[in-house]
Amino acid sequence: MAEKTVKIAIVGFGTIGSGVAKILLEDADYIEAKTGIRLELARVVDIDTKSKRKVALPKGLLTDNLNSILEDKSIEIGVELVGGTKAAKDIQLKLLAGGKDVVTANKALLAEHGNELFTAAHKADKCIAFEASCAGGIPIISAIRTGLAANKIKAIYAIVNGTCNYILSNMTKKNMQFADALKQAQEKGYAEADPALDINGTDSAHKLAILASIAFGCEITPDDIYVEGIENIDTSDICYGREMGYTLKLLAIAQRADNGKIFLRVHPCFIPSDSALARVDGPFNAVSIFGNAAGQVMFYGRGAGMMPTASAIVADIIEVAMGNSKRLFKHLKLEPRNKVKNRISKIDELTSRFYIKLRALDKPGVFAQIGTVLAKNDISLSGVLQHEEHNTNNVVPVVVITHQTRQDKIAAAIKDLGKLDVVKDNPVCIRIVDIPEDNVE
Amino acid sequence: MAEKTVKIAIVGFGTIGSGVAKILLEDADYIEAKTGIRLELARVVDIDTKSKRKVALPKGLLTDNLNSILEDKSIEIGVELVGGTKAAKDIQLKLLAGGKDVVTANKALLAEHGNELFTAAHKADKCIAFEASCAGGIPIISAIRTGLAANKIKAIYAIVNGTCNYILSNMTKKNMQFADALKQAQEKGYAEADPALDINGTDSAHKLAILASIAFGCEITPDDIYVEGIENIDTSDICYGREMGYTLKLLAIAQRADNGKIFLRVHPCFIPSDSALARVDGPFNAVSIFGNAAGQVMFYGRGAGMMPTASAIVADIIEVAMGNSKRLFKHLKLEPRNKVKNRISKIDELTSRFYIKLRALDKPGVFAQIGTVLAKNDISLSGVLQHEEHNTNNVVPVVVITHQTRQDKIAAAIKDLGKLDVVKDNPVCIRIVDIPEDNVE
Repeated sequence: MAEKTVKIAIVGFGTIGSGVAKILLEDADYIEAKTGIRLELARVVDIDTKSKRKVALPKGLLTDNLNSILEDKSIEIGVELVGGTKAAKDIQLKLLAGGKDVVTANKALLAEHGNELFTAAHKADKCIAFEASCAGGIPIISAIRTGLAANKIKAIYAIVNGTCNYILSNMTKKNMQFADALKQAQEKGYAEADPALDINGTDSAHKLAILASIAFGCEITPDDIYVEGIENIDTSDICYGREMGYTLKLLAIAQRADNGKIFLRVHPCFIPSDSALARVDGPFNAVSIFGNAAGQVMFYGRGAGMMPTASAIVADIIEVAMGNSKRLFKHLKLEPRNKVKNRISKIDELTSRFYIKLRALDKPGVFAQIGTVLAKNDISLSGVLQHEEHNTNNVVPVVVITHQTRQDKIAAAIKDLGKLDVVKDNPVCIRIVDIPEDNVE
Repeated sequence: MAEKTVKIAIVGFGTIGSGVAKILLEDADYIEAKTGIRLELARVVDIDTKSKRKVALPKGLLTDNLNSILEDKSIEIGVELVGGTKAAKDIQLKLLAGGKDVVTANKALLAEHGNELFTAAHKADKCIAFEASCAGGIPIISAIRTGLAANKIKAIYAIVNGTCNYILSNMTKKNMQFADALKQAQEKGYAEADPALDINGTDSAHKLAILASIAFGCEITPDDIYVEGIENIDTSDICYGREMGYTLKLLAIAQRADNGKIFLRVHPCFIPSDSALARVDGPFNAVSIFGNAAGQVMFYGRGAGMMPTASAIVADIIEVAMGNSKRLFKHLKLEPRNKVKNRISKIDELTSRFYIKLRALDKPGVFAQIGTVLAKNDISLSGVLQHEEHNTNNVVPVVVITHQTRQDKIAAAIKDLGKLDVVKDNPVCIRIVDIPEDNVE
């Protein structure tokens, strides 16, 4: 006999909602045996009650009436899977006010209005669980909040957008051009019809805002994050980087210095090809966490998809039903943004190594001119690559790798280089990220 | 103000005990802010109260008298870090009987007497938390029990012994011989003075017993696990394997088939060099879990060491202090071994691919003889490697890779091959494990 039965309602009966319903309908016995709690899917709400879904619901469960949940006091947990930030926010607030705990996968909403929703939940003495909002089936939120609870988190380096990683993997391994790789990602179902939020880095920034908020205990929004997407990456740069031992990834990076300064950024970058994150291929996600006690811990898995995401949502439902989430959530008090804001570094303050590619005229004195510009801006080089090319336009690609340099100096140098007569097209500049791998001999 | 203060006693003040004390003494404020609970180190017990440790305890905390904990009703949690299976078991049982929850890193004890201890804990209405028993700082127990709670676990492929992985990495990357690599591991502090339990696979089997028990929900002991160590691995075989695209690892593998049959084994094996586990180098650990919903999820980090292990222990202390562990532990009912036993497969039932190396005379007809023996045993080949060698003894190494074959057939063939006049020395036979990577194009 179950110790207790917990009734659950799903709002939003799309792909993920279907996955959650499938687990709740098929595996309730298994979950009860492990937890003592009977999970009962009591209601599914969607404006579309007609279309065929991937899972068959018992008769009478599906409705388009949200009030049928709000008014049913026996329903304890509401799973918001509507997506977007407007209707979803309203629904979450109504669920909380209606006395229900909320489980959600809505990263955009949490990234933009997380603290407001958390405050509403605290007021209602309810909790919001959001494991599925970051990195799909990887239990990363739980890892940060419980498994690594004894750690002060120093940094997060993450691949949290499977669409971009799939595209970059194909550009890297098959020398595909961006447009073709994107098209293939769409055909395979890894990219939305409108992939803008994925490829311009916004989706990664949403996830980083959530991860950094809970890891650092302060309110971080997407506005605090420097963001560049992968839409302008050219396959030739991936190839030159590879020759020099680097792999291009879209990373989401959060770092907290000992003085409390926080650096948050999402951008394509070269990382050493033998680093663990460089080896994360295809639509997979990986999150590397650096804790002061545990050192580097990396989590790898499927960052999206019906069943992986449903796996994370049902894990949350179980924790909420057992009462464990609420106890921890009660203490999820984020330092408010107005206090955090002045500790957040600007991208110009970044010190990094850089990959710079110029298309330069193949004539005497060109290297001297480029070198003079770099020297003027206090930039020293650690590597240069120039292949012999036999073309008719007399323009050759020149790649340089810099030593550690401040972003603002690089920006000035790139501007100066662009003005040189011998340099054709705009210079390409890609950051090199040296992940402080927890290396041991 | 803390919601409540929880008093903790540590039994065993060695390296790990010092790490736990360090976190409790230095980070109590930080942990209180996140959880609302004040952790107070109330007592440390060790038979040696004189030696200098890596952390300075407040005066009066250290004693050699276990009863001072048992008699102090205000102490709620006892951390057993004595190690070994005799005294430690007695201490855990006394702590439970004394009304304390137990936190432990003792894999040998849990692997051999886990169910007995769990039963004692259930009787005392207390819990045992054991995150630190497997894979050090990686929160793998919590991942299986909560983050992946909605999954039926189908398989575990794990590198859980950092000593062996360090040795094999050095044999692979630096072509070191086993004895030299072991010596270096000892010098670096990655291997015990007596490394037998590490290199013969016993330690990995202990951890696999624990992981498989909680993943499959049944009582599994080291006796149920087929175990081979790495002590007889020769660097030349690592090199031949590498040429053919394989990397040698000591893997701990647990698989559960749909019909309930369970396969448990620890042995050195070749895995494809581009698989995620093949890239786990040095003393790191990694655990790959296959869930029916989440797919493949891999966890990577430091499997040992003072602070990573302390990180896991304090995470457990926090979960126990919050009451979360107890709620879940209450339902940790393992199917008893006498019922599970007949579902556990024998190694002879294994179907696998195999790497076989023979040292054979370099003369006409040798290949035919080898081929005849293999054919007689129903074994077909997928690859052969023989380098030209210019030596005086006229003996050359011949490497063959088989297709899927049953273990008992390979055993018979190896015996027959050993009897051939043209085959010198004993044939070397290493399993090839094809990890069902959750591959997506």
